[in-house]
Amino acid sequence: MITPDTRIMNTAIEIAEKNQTPFGAVLAMGDEIFATAANQTRELHDPTAHAELLVIRKLCSQLKKTDLSGFTLYTTCEPCPMCMSAAIWAKIDVIYYGCDIPSISEKMPQIDIRSRDINKKSFHNVTIQGGVLEKRCMEILQLFS
Amino acid sequence: MITPDTRIMNTAIEIAEKNQTPFGAVLAMGDEIFATAANQTRELHDPTAHAELLVIRKLCSQLKKTDLSGFTLYTTCEPCPMCMSAAIWAKIDVIYYGCDIPSISEKMPQIDIRSRDINKKSFHNVTIQGGVLEKRCMEILQLFS
Repeated sequence: MITPDTRIMNTAIEIAEKNQTPFGAVLAMGDEIFATAANQTRELHDPTAHAELLVIRKLCSQLKKTDLSGFTLYTTCEPCPMCMSAAIWAKIDVIYYGCDIPSISEKMPQIDIRSRDINKKSFHNVTIQGGVLEKRCMEILQLFS
Repeated sequence: MITPDTRIMNTAIEIAEKNQTPFGAVLAMGDEIFATAANQTRELHDPTAHAELLVIRKLCSQLKKTDLSGFTLYTTCEPCPMCMSAAIWAKIDVIYYGCDIPSISEKMPQIDIRSRDINKKSFHNVTIQGGVLEKRCMEILQLFS
């Protein structure tokens, strides 16, 4: 297991705060940040505009490819089954998240399937680690939900 | 259980064929078609550009809202966990599909979680029925995968 870069998770937290949402995401390779996004479901009238889905779409569009092998996704909250599946389709290698789906469920309705359970049933294995800057991520979850 | 409209599933099949992909989707209310889409992952360099996700985004953009309550999704192939979760976030009421994930798995890698298993863990209950014009949907799956 490689070690999460807390500076990059801080960037995910900052992009979330700036957009007044608990949900921010960053795609990075090593210590280099390639793309950032915050949840924009309301602004875009798009129920799929979760931070993770947007950041995947943004980087794929920039790179003109659908394969993000080698990239790491940092996200303030554990990816929902939609976003986790998108990360698998994009062949992302590593996911670091802050707070988990049970914590998010206390604030808003969730689909109750953990990212690791999606991963287990997949054709592509993602390394997943939660609890990264969890206290800060929980603070913005409290603040903006 | 209401009855699927095979004319609408035929439209989903036609949009798939026209785009030379096994994957076509339509959003309808009653017998009125509101939006159609085919898989465009390669064309758009977007691993999330599955037919179902695109048709949900298209109609939400048209209606300027994230809630598709009252709409029915017709799709040539059973929604993957990403698309099924997107349908739940959009509060779609009914999904009709042609061929199922085990059949698609014989042709290409899949995340092996059925739409009804996502539905069971959700905050919103979708009525799901497979096998609609299944033979025709299998034909285009064979042809374009």
